[in-house]
Amino acid sequence: MILYDNRRFLGYSQYFHVFGSAIFTFRSAPQSVVGAAVGYYATQNADELTDYIVNPTAYFSAISLVLGFLLVFRTQLAYMRYWEGRTSFQTLMSKLEDVGIHTKTFVRLNDSEAIKWKNAMGHMLINYLALAMAELRGERDLDEVVTKYNLSLTPDQREELEAFSYRAYIAMSWIMDAWVKRATAGGVTVPPPVQSRTYQNLSEAQLAFNAAQKIQSTPFPYPFVQVCGMLLNVYMFSAPLVIGAYINHFIFGTLLSCFSVLGFFALNRTADELEDPFGHDPNDLPLDHYLCSFQESMVSLGIIQYSELQVADDE
Amino acid sequence: MILYDNRRFLGYSQYFHVFGSAIFTFRSAPQSVVGAAVGYYATQNADELTDYIVNPTAYFSAISLVLGFLLVFRTQLAYMRYWEGRTSFQTLMSKLEDVGIHTKTFVRLNDSEAIKWKNAMGHMLINYLALAMAELRGERDLDEVVTKYNLSLTPDQREELEAFSYRAYIAMSWIMDAWVKRATAGGVTVPPPVQSRTYQNLSEAQLAFNAAQKIQSTPFPYPFVQVCGMLLNVYMFSAPLVIGAYINHFIFGTLLSCFSVLGFFALNRTADELEDPFGHDPNDLPLDHYLCSFQESMVSLGIIQYSELQVADDE
Amino acid sequence: MILYDNRRFLGYSQYFHVFGSAIFTFRSAPQSVVGAAVGYYATQNADELTDYIVNPTAYFSAISLVLGFLLVFRTQLAYMRYWEGRTSFQTLMSKLEDVGIHTKTFVRLNDSEAIKWKNAMGHMLINYLALAMAELRGERDLDEVVTKYNLSLTPDQREELEAFSYRAYIAMSWIMDAWVKRATAGGVTVPPPVQSRTYQNLSEAQLAFNAAQKIQSTPFPYPFVQVCGMLLNVYMFSAPLVIGAYINHFIFGTLLSCFSVLGFFALNRTADELEDPFGHDPNDLPLDHYLCSFQESMVSLGIIQYSELQVADDE
Amino acid sequence: MILYDNRRFLGYSQYFHVFGSAIFTFRSAPQSVVGAAVGYYATQNADELTDYIVNPTAYFSAISLVLGFLLVFRTQLAYMRYWEGRTSFQTLMSKLEDVGIHTKTFVRLNDSEAIKWKNAMGHMLINYLALAMAELRGERDLDEVVTKYNLSLTPDQREELEAFSYRAYIAMSWIMDAWVKRATAGGVTVPPPVQSRTYQNLSEAQLAFNAAQKIQSTPFPYPFVQVCGMLLNVYMFSAPLVIGAYINHFIFGTLLSCFSVLGFFALNRTADELEDPFGHDPNDLPLDHYLCSFQESMVSLGIIQYSELQVADDE
Amino acid sequence: MILYDNRRFLGYSQYFHVFGSAIFTFRSAPQSVVGAAVGYYATQNADELTDYIVNPTAYFSAISLVLGFLLVFRTQLAYMRYWEGRTSFQTLMSKLEDVGIHTKTFVRLNDSEAIKWKNAMGHMLINYLALAMAELRGERDLDEVVTKYNLSLTPDQREELEAFSYRAYIAMSWIMDAWVKRATAGGVTVPPPVQSRTYQNLSEAQLAFNAAQKIQSTPFPYPFVQVCGMLLNVYMFSAPLVIGAYINHFIFGTLLSCFSVLGFFALNRTADELEDPFGHDPNDLPLDHYLCSFQESMVSLGIIQYSELQVADDE
Repeated sequence: MILYDNRRFLGYSQYFHVFGSAIFTFRSAPQSVVGAAVGYYATQNADELTDYIVNPTAYFSAISLVLGFLLVFRTQLAYMRYWEGRTSFQTLMSKLEDVGIHTKTFVRLNDSEAIKWKNAMGHMLINYLALAMAELRGERDLDEVVTKYNLSLTPDQREELEAFSYRAYIAMSWIMDAWVKRATAGGVTVPPPVQSRTYQNLSEAQLAFNAAQKIQSTPFPYPFVQVCGMLLNVYMFSAPLVIGAYINHFIFGTLLSCFSVLGFFALNRTADELEDPFGHDPNDLPLDHYLCSFQESMVSLGIIQYSELQVADDE
Repeated sequence: MILYDNRRFLGYSQYFHVFGSAIFTFRSAPQSVVGAAVGYYATQNADELTDYIVNPTAYFSAISLVLGFLLVFRTQLAYMRYWEGRTSFQTLMSKLEDVGIHTKTFVRLNDSEAIKWKNAMGHMLINYLALAMAELRGERDLDEVVTKYNLSLTPDQREELEAFSYRAYIAMSWIMDAWVKRATAGGVTVPPPVQSRTYQNLSEAQLAFNAAQKIQSTPFPYPFVQVCGMLLNVYMFSAPLVIGAYINHFIFGTLLSCFSVLGFFALNRTADELEDPFGHDPNDLPLDHYLCSFQESMVSLGIIQYSELQVADDE
Repeated sequence: MILYDNRRFLGYSQYFHVFGSAIFTFRSAPQSVVGAAVGYYATQNADELTDYIVNPTAYFSAISLVLGFLLVFRTQLAYMRYWEGRTSFQTLMSKLEDVGIHTKTFVRLNDSEAIKWKNAMGHMLINYLALAMAELRGERDLDEVVTKYNLSLTPDQREELEAFSYRAYIAMSWIMDAWVKRATAGGVTVPPPVQSRTYQNLSEAQLAFNAAQKIQSTPFPYPFVQVCGMLLNVYMFSAPLVIGAYINHFIFGTLLSCFSVLGFFALNRTADELEDPFGHDPNDLPLDHYLCSFQESMVSLGIIQYSELQVADDE
Repeated sequence: MILYDNRRFLGYSQYFHVFGSAIFTFRSAPQSVVGAAVGYYATQNADELTDYIVNPTAYFSAISLVLGFLLVFRTQLAYMRYWEGRTSFQTLMSKLEDVGIHTKTFVRLNDSEAIKWKNAMGHMLINYLALAMAELRGERDLDEVVTKYNLSLTPDQREELEAFSYRAYIAMSWIMDAWVKRATAGGVTVPPPVQSRTYQNLSEAQLAFNAAQKIQSTPFPYPFVQVCGMLLNVYMFSAPLVIGAYINHFIFGTLLSCFSVLGFFALNRTADELEDPFGHDPNDLPLDHYLCSFQESMVSLGIIQYSELQVADDE
Repeated sequence: MILYDNRRFLGYSQYFHVFGSAIFTFRSAPQSVVGAAVGYYATQNADELTDYIVNPTAYFSAISLVLGFLLVFRTQLAYMRYWEGRTSFQTLMSKLEDVGIHTKTFVRLNDSEAIKWKNAMGHMLINYLALAMAELRGERDLDEVVTKYNLSLTPDQREELEAFSYRAYIAMSWIMDAWVKRATAGGVTVPPPVQSRTYQNLSEAQLAFNAAQKIQSTPFPYPFVQVCGMLLNVYMFSAPLVIGAYINHFIFGTLLSCFSVLGFFALNRTADELEDPFGHDPNDLPLDHYLCSFQESMVSLGIIQYSELQVADDE
């Protein structure tokens, strides 16, 4: 995710980032150069072209109007996917943080055994979040995941994660199991109706994770993407012909052709970037940063210690 | 559902799938050929046509503007139906998976009777999901459904399913019945307030299934579809006349006519495909794959064994 | 609700239904004839008209652009009302079906008294749904309602329904009363926290009914409808003048005038039809069919018998 | 709220209401007259104007396109506010009605004390709804509110309401207090998990009231309104110049100028009307009618008597 | 937030606020002056320009159509962010107010210890809301926050807040801790199922705060902003050339150029303003006012005294 400063130089400083741009990218810039070249050609052959292209309205009504709407609408849907992903992840974290508070307040005993249990629960919650993140990012190699997110796993847990592919789900079953075991043993001091809140939070955390997974595993429908792609490429070759023929100044016509093609392709690229907000692209959500936040919140409850954490927040 | 690679050849490789395309299909391609033919005719008779069609703006403002909006908006609504279907199915699975965890953790005894009960519950959950899928896909023949999804049913259950048409509903009543019976017999070790979470999850699973069913049983309203169809077919015959008359180069005019008609029909086809996301069409949701995932999650909880499953994930 | 076949003849068979059409109706067809007539007049007087109407862009930008957006947007909102109505009714049924399962599984005794209570509860749920339907359709005559939906009421219940106009609400209070009475008498075998799910479902059913009622009792805001109507009728008389003047072929100009006016009016009619999805119009929701489904689901639970039902599903 | 008949005279009867119209109002009609006057002037000076205004496309693309979208979109947002307000109020009532049923069924004793308590609870619920309505309408004078909505308050309650400005909130605390007191004293016959539904309903009623209040207290953002206003007034003076110059028939040009300006202003007025659905404007929600409905529903439960009510439903 | 009077002078008085305007600002006004200057230049060189810019349609279709949609759509998304922020904050307050009522009614004892506990809880709720506000506004200096919002903290609490950065979260853990401690000690007089409502409300308050935080911490995606910025600045220099060339009256052409550029930039500025509704900008939500309301509601419950408050409501 790119944080931009919209205050300096009356806001103009924000327009010149290259990192994460939809303009300065191989998906838009080459096409705009093609557009500019065709546009330049058209300005030089305007007389001939206007014999054929008698009225530019016919062209724009037939092709670019519908393409324009399609792209704006695709971008809108892409933004909604992005926002739904953001919201799901936020809900996931909020629910887990709530379980963190329960861990601190529902288990009142402070003998060494209770402290150990709370610490283990803190790690289980962090593990769950990290495994959920790894699934959303498509990271399947368990060794890498353990190293990268610095998971603290018992050998049994490690073995179980290796055997199955739904790792976050398994981690969730551990958490629920730990609560049921402790409650059955009498180690939870609040009455059962209040205990049941914990299970509700866990269920809602899992639902939120599944909602995020849904976005990651369901791409934007193919026919839609194909129609956009077809019209975009038709536009790239034909629109500059019309623009150059009717705005036949060699600089002005070429520039407008370039910006027109660039605008459409950059919009398409923007949609592409936003459709899947999980991953390591510049415009993806800063999941590592969220994980660090979550770890710090566990530390602030006093159930785990700073010294137990090693993941650096480098985003 | 089609997974496409949007990285190879700067993303251009994604545009040439035929399977599941809205372009290379009998619902769009023939019409684009008609459009091209009319367009070619118009380029050859441009002089005569421009006597009649004095200004192309009148044509495009009167017909194609509203058609364009209608189609873009129909596609947007279709996408929302698709997404709602996806979300409902995800919620259904998430809630059932939660009940799976409850099966493992709320029933702590591990005598052979408890293990058997858990195994039966695992199969009941899988049966429910499979029967729900069959209803969403309109598969009514019970023998086929049992074979296809490899359901393990007792003779009594089989008989009951044969007698009534709301099969998923009946399967849900079995699940709830089994939980109530076990809890009454003292076989659930968590206190009642925590037990009640299981019933809430089941209720929410049923609600999510009903929401998915709603989409499948309620087609996009007929008058809307008819108005789109009428305008589309008027467009196919008339727009190329205007395009060809005013862009009267025999190649350029013909191509633009073709792409303009193709774009509109492909958009309509896209909406058609997305409106009902359940079924066996190329762009429908991969329900078989989801069922396999669910079965694997039951296996990873240890309540059923891999050897009990036979459905192959061939999507 | 009209189920159409979008597969036969490459999908073309779906466009020729008259029943429920927004095209072949007295709200759109006469206006399209007026449009055609004005358009024909314009083609015959094109020379004179083009002296006055110097540029068609001025006309279309000033009137039809905003009308087009308004209508597309009104249709979108109408569809959302339709869909919200559909969703509310689905939720209502889903929640009542859940209470049906509770009736079967939460009351485990199978002495004749329990069987009778369950049967009575089944009828109360059906009565509630039928009374809700009658309110949504504006059917106020109790005798007719009782006959039409074949309600089985005790004389006391009948009397109470006659005294007050919020019939579904009264029926809901009976259902809750019956559950409280039975639970207090010890006839519900699940513990109170699980019992409370039943009350939650009933509360959510009532909320869903109220949401459906909201749509039925709150028409689309009047000023909006009036502005659409004003611009539509201005369009009907003026647009064909411009179309005919600039597309002055007597067949082509007349046809385009006709379709242009028809398209706008049909869109308006579509919105009109979808705004209130409850009632007996061709495009309204098949409530009778839903009621039958619900009755069958009660039968499949074994709490009421087929022989007790008489309502035919004729939709 | 205006109920219109969309069936008489093929629906044409609905277009001529003056009450609540966005057309026959001082916010739209005078501007349309200005527009018509400018348009008439333009038709008389068309030759001179067309020397300056060489192409109307430049004008309409630069100004009216974006204004049109802005207004359609503003109206859409206004409708969403209207609908959210309607939904919130419906939820508020639905939840209170549910508490009404609880009052009847959860308190089973029918000694005179219980009857009195139920009656008092009925009045408290009505008071809460009336005070919520008064807050939504900005009615701050307590004497007027008491008289208008015929509240039955004890002197203590009256005093408390006078001291603080969050009256509905105080009324809610009375309701919850009354339930807690009665339950503590053993006067509620359902077990605590079922009792807790009542508190949930009350909490949801308060949330729904707050959501309605949010709409009333948060106007549509100012910069948006200002941009619309600026462009609308620029349009009023400039668009008719262009329309009249290019549609230079003195009747046709004047009428189109008039309707074009009227359409835009009426749309703006519609948005204005819908943005805050609470109040006494013709298009506002019929809150008084809803209050009467609620009172009748309390009567139908038998917890209060008709004779205790005096508010007439005059909407 | 700016409250404007839309009644005086037929609503015209509302258009002339400078404070919070998107028109009278350094982000829109200078650009409109540039636009006017270019437009004036174009009117003076119209003959030469029309040799190059043969048809204005080509220009507007290629650039301004898509820019217009983009901006309208960006503004729509910005409004949705604004409204989601408003809704989240309202939910946060509503849930905390509910806990306030619980504080009053669930703890019935009125000995001095109970009164003290209630008072402390009231302050804890206020502290939570104030700390949540400070986080939403990015106020990180604890001393300033304590002074500004007049927090009453114990030294221990103060120390804990200084050690960690998730202050609202820590404050939430205090609140839950206080409830658990009191309930365990027998100081809450309602049964556990009713007590559990309090925890649910607190969990929902935290979720609502997190939803608000999500908006504040996730800016509108960068590529989108960059594409808008690029096209806007291209528009500023090129559109007035076309407008001035084809509306070549030196006043009319200059004014239209000015308003056209102003309209687009003001729209962009509006979106900018609404995207993050938390902060101290003129159009941001009046958080201070909401805090005062909340404090008053705590006073009206009688759990804290007016004399304990010092924050002035100066918005």
